[in-house]
Amino acid sequence: MAITVVGSVAFDSIETPAGRQERCLGGAATHFALAASFFTDVRVIAVVGEDFGPEQEAVFHKRKIDIRGIERAPGKSFFWEGSYLDNLNEARTHNTELNVFASFEPKIPDAYHDSEFLFLANIDPVLQKRVREAMPDVKLVAGDTMNYWIKDHRAALLEVLKGLDVLLINDTEARMLAGANNLVQAARAVLALGPRTLIVKHGEYGATAFFSSHSFSTDGEYAEHIFRAPALPLEEVVDPTGAGDSFAGGFFGYLASQTELSPATFRRAMFYGSVMGSFAVERFGTERIQALTRKEIDDRFTVFRELTHLD
Amino acid sequence: MAITVVGSVAFDSIETPAGRQERCLGGAATHFALAASFFTDVRVIAVVGEDFGPEQEAVFHKRKIDIRGIERAPGKSFFWEGSYLDNLNEARTHNTELNVFASFEPKIPDAYHDSEFLFLANIDPVLQKRVREAMPDVKLVAGDTMNYWIKDHRAALLEVLKGLDVLLINDTEARMLAGANNLVQAARAVLALGPRTLIVKHGEYGATAFFSSHSFSTDGEYAEHIFRAPALPLEEVVDPTGAGDSFAGGFFGYLASQTELSPATFRRAMFYGSVMGSFAVERFGTERIQALTRKEIDDRFTVFRELTHLD
Repeated sequence: MAITVVGSVAFDSIETPAGRQERCLGGAATHFALAASFFTDVRVIAVVGEDFGPEQEAVFHKRKIDIRGIERAPGKSFFWEGSYLDNLNEARTHNTELNVFASFEPKIPDAYHDSEFLFLANIDPVLQKRVREAMPDVKLVAGDTMNYWIKDHRAALLEVLKGLDVLLINDTEARMLAGANNLVQAARAVLALGPRTLIVKHGEYGATAFFSSHSFSTDGEYAEHIFRAPALPLEEVVDPTGAGDSFAGGFFGYLASQTELSPATFRRAMFYGSVMGSFAVERFGTERIQALTRKEIDDRFTVFRELTHLD
Repeated sequence: MAITVVGSVAFDSIETPAGRQERCLGGAATHFALAASFFTDVRVIAVVGEDFGPEQEAVFHKRKIDIRGIERAPGKSFFWEGSYLDNLNEARTHNTELNVFASFEPKIPDAYHDSEFLFLANIDPVLQKRVREAMPDVKLVAGDTMNYWIKDHRAALLEVLKGLDVLLINDTEARMLAGANNLVQAARAVLALGPRTLIVKHGEYGATAFFSSHSFSTDGEYAEHIFRAPALPLEEVVDPTGAGDSFAGGFFGYLASQTELSPATFRRAMFYGSVMGSFAVERFGTERIQALTRKEIDDRFTVFRELTHLD
């Protein structure tokens, strides 16, 4: 089943202990779409400027991603400059230029309307809500957000949360959103805000899924409400940018490729999320995911299983 | 097979967001021995003062722990006072009184000499080495250490590491010991110092075992060199004191209870370590482990499996 994703398509200049790269193709929707494209059809809604040309288009086309919903506007694309020199787990932002993104009005191509999965990447919750409402027939909606929206746009964000099936955020964001320091208590508080499933990303320690009792359409015997997927201990993290979006792409892409959304499907989706996150950080920007094969993905899935399973 | 453990038996005054407890029975050897006693025979080498009386003895006797190696000395037992008010992952020490521990000279009862497993809890590496050398026939030796010994007693510690089969430390200690920030690189550097297996404890995120290629006596086909065990997401952590030592007790106790030390045994041992750590923090001091049953342990083992396994 097809996924529509709305979010940023951007250029990133990134410095890490492994080096520096200028104006890589980036943005949450880009990382998400590339990762999800290994599992299902993906359609992107975004806005770019005149600096987005055939070279960038080719990255999407090569992965058969539908970009009819990427609007071209006069001016420059969203640009972010950051570094991870002290701490690979936390970006330091040096410069953010919203450019054409400042007046982004998501427009949904008619051809996208039969999408059954919708991913609301990290953008203004007012826009997230608008896209959600314009696609009332989707089967499953997942979303991301960040500290800025949690702190300063809480009312709008709470409106979005009511309509989400799955929220994917990191530890700090979960604690901030819930106003609770203990992760289990924070998760319960977040689930009470609307999402049926909360996935908390722990960076190098993996991710935890918290399922509310009504997480699964096939309701019934599912007794366990927490699942932990590991991250792969990596010898070198070249660039953490986009790891969380790639996790989301692997997770949601796998779900969309399955006919039944059972607890077992969600567990495997968590592993595919971790797999895609582990590839994303191996090179700058989208470089590693662009070069990836489905066989590499499945081989690493096996590694993740061996990393965590007793037998 | 029996385990001999050498380390501290102490009194702890502890303050956490859940409350305050004065002079709980504590110390690394105590937490380790209680946790391990659910799996195998345990023998303790330590020194206590005149404040260690029948009430404390009874805690060990109830778990059938051999304390003939706990020496009584004139004066007071090791005393530690600390709090976890800002951060449950890191103790703040308010007071440490070494007391009788300052002149501790481990004495090994004759009856301990047929122990096949030896655990060197976190004490002066000079003493760890002395006990190791006095028990040359043990089959497996594991040990713990801390930042203080890594920083200021490195030469003595390196001597101990040469004789260890398993080293259990936390993230910060592993990075400090190796002088490397990346965990995989740090693990490789630590394994090069002697231990055949390194277990890095991540607190609320579980633990990772790094196996060197000669980790297992049954050598051969073992291709995977890393294993991750989760921690249980807990709604309330009452007191983190002793969680790491309880993990070590569960891990090493389970190993000692098995006839074959295969990779699968090590994996299950990691899970039992996490299980015992998860119980330890549920109440102050040793309270929860004292009240524990083997059935509760095995039930929680099942929970850990469901928390991480795909099927």
